[in-house]
Amino acid sequence: DCPVNYVKIGPGIICVFWTYLIDRFFKELSATEYFSEGKKLIDEALQRFLPDEQSYPENIHKSMLYSVFAGGKRLRPILVFAAVEAVGGDRHSVLPFAVAAELVHTYTLIHDDLPALDNDDLRRGKPTNHKVFGEAIAILAGDALLTQAFILMTNANLMESIPEKNILAAAQDMTLALGTKGMIGGQVVDIESEGKPVDAETLEYIHIYKTGHLIRACVRAGAILSGTGKADFQALSTYGAHIGLAFQIVDDILDIMADEGQLGKDVGSDINKEKATYPALYGLEESKRKAESLIEDGIACLESFDERADPLRFIARFFVQRTF
Amino acid sequence: DCPVNYVKIGPGIICVFWTYLIDRFFKELSATEYFSEGKKLIDEALQRFLPDEQSYPENIHKSMLYSVFAGGKRLRPILVFAAVEAVGGDRHSVLPFAVAAELVHTYTLIHDDLPALDNDDLRRGKPTNHKVFGEAIAILAGDALLTQAFILMTNANLMESIPEKNILAAAQDMTLALGTKGMIGGQVVDIESEGKPVDAETLEYIHIYKTGHLIRACVRAGAILSGTGKADFQALSTYGAHIGLAFQIVDDILDIMADEGQLGKDVGSDINKEKATYPALYGLEESKRKAESLIEDGIACLESFDERADPLRFIARFFVQRTF
Repeated sequence: DCPVNYVKIGPGIICVFWTYLIDRFFKELSATEYFSEGKKLIDEALQRFLPDEQSYPENIHKSMLYSVFAGGKRLRPILVFAAVEAVGGDRHSVLPFAVAAELVHTYTLIHDDLPALDNDDLRRGKPTNHKVFGEAIAILAGDALLTQAFILMTNANLMESIPEKNILAAAQDMTLALGTKGMIGGQVVDIESEGKPVDAETLEYIHIYKTGHLIRACVRAGAILSGTGKADFQALSTYGAHIGLAFQIVDDILDIMADEGQLGKDVGSDINKEKATYPALYGLEESKRKAESLIEDGIACLESFDERADPLRFIARFFVQRTF
Repeated sequence: DCPVNYVKIGPGIICVFWTYLIDRFFKELSATEYFSEGKKLIDEALQRFLPDEQSYPENIHKSMLYSVFAGGKRLRPILVFAAVEAVGGDRHSVLPFAVAAELVHTYTLIHDDLPALDNDDLRRGKPTNHKVFGEAIAILAGDALLTQAFILMTNANLMESIPEKNILAAAQDMTLALGTKGMIGGQVVDIESEGKPVDAETLEYIHIYKTGHLIRACVRAGAILSGTGKADFQALSTYGAHIGLAFQIVDDILDIMADEGQLGKDVGSDINKEKATYPALYGLEESKRKAESLIEDGIACLESFDERADPLRFIARFFVQRTF
């Protein structure tokens, strides 16, 4: 904040203006740094926690690594870090769990892209997994990434500073978010709704379940692993629910608006598949408004948190400002 | 044992003979009862621990229940029970974990049967999952069963009498058996070996990894959940490894020898797919001998256990005597 006694006509206004610009510059810088540091740590850990390409049977590991290192933004593990840090914890203590969240995300992408599901040829600008390794290996690579995620989530030796009770509770919470009363439920309704008129309630179900539950689970995992109290947990969970839904609405918008090169997949593929989307039901402007309002509501949940929750705040803002 | 003082020429021999027959009759009866009681408990628990057919989204739950209740013998959960009981534990205390083992088994069957993998039309005498529900739902049903298994394995509330430390360790051990350094590794090499000459080492790898590791993990889970000592754990683990490999060798034999109606799938399908099998490499007689010798070695691991390990002993014998 610009100290009030400097605000005088002329130089005062300039001072306010500069202070604002400098403040913004450093906030942007620290947000960019937070993302890139988080991504670096996750990328290193992914190498460490996955069998390498030379490991027998080589082909399945090549297939897994291909999709894991196909250019993900690592937003989900970074959310685990940010949640842990918001309640005073240390990101290194939960690293295996954060990596698990990225593996789960990658598994869903590989299975979603299969010919029997979305039948996509491109993902993040590269041929999809089954296009490179064939359908059999792609199916097994998805299974293996999900399994590897569970292997990491239940590895007490790698999370020594976290009480076993908390590890078990976080694993339980995360797995619930991935089942038929979570992510898979959303995927099923998404597939079954293709080419059909979809009401607002079903559309919200698809988006919350297909995408929102995993994002919320990442935030909740940070809280559960850190053993935070009920009130903080509830605040973080509601924050996660809001930004999770917003994320998928923005995904819908980007599918129409984005630059194909930047998005790395076919623009307009939702329309071609007659997918249920927010822009299709509400129009682009109203969809943007909804996403922004969800982000504001999400950030408002963090009112009682100090500056250690700033990363959660700027991650939320990034969720609506992103272009890929 | 027949008391020695009754053994006299004439009536003595008759006594020995009758005692043997009666003893055998009761042992067979108690084995049959053990299997049927175990199956009943598992079937009830499967109903209880899975969302029902009316649960939204209905189709995925119908698909999961279709394969789960397609006539499985429930051997894997019964092995969990038998291992727990061998070390003095109670089957009810580990019920969710035992059910999880059956869900894992069912997930592998659904994914294995897919057109991109084994492309099977029949399983246990019924159309395979993708034949009834389509490939998209079959893939997601497999994913959902694996996820539901993890949901159960990490549910501390349902296993109140088991220390959280043991639950976490058992979940870690089971998940390791399911990954690319376990079951999926075996599946990959199995697929990649089709139509190729396979050496003894690769064949053993496929069978131990594809089938043996899950069976061994069921026995180990019983031991870990019960918090048994290192020596007993090692004995049970080796028992599990032996009977696990024997189980898959017998599977190979049944694929050639069995009655199609009883087996519930196409007899001779391994030959048609040019799968790597024990009979193909060693011949039928030598394969049978290998299986029997593995079972004897497995049972020998239980030497230091009392009669509470009898179910593990007769399960092992059933593994080679079964006809389906």
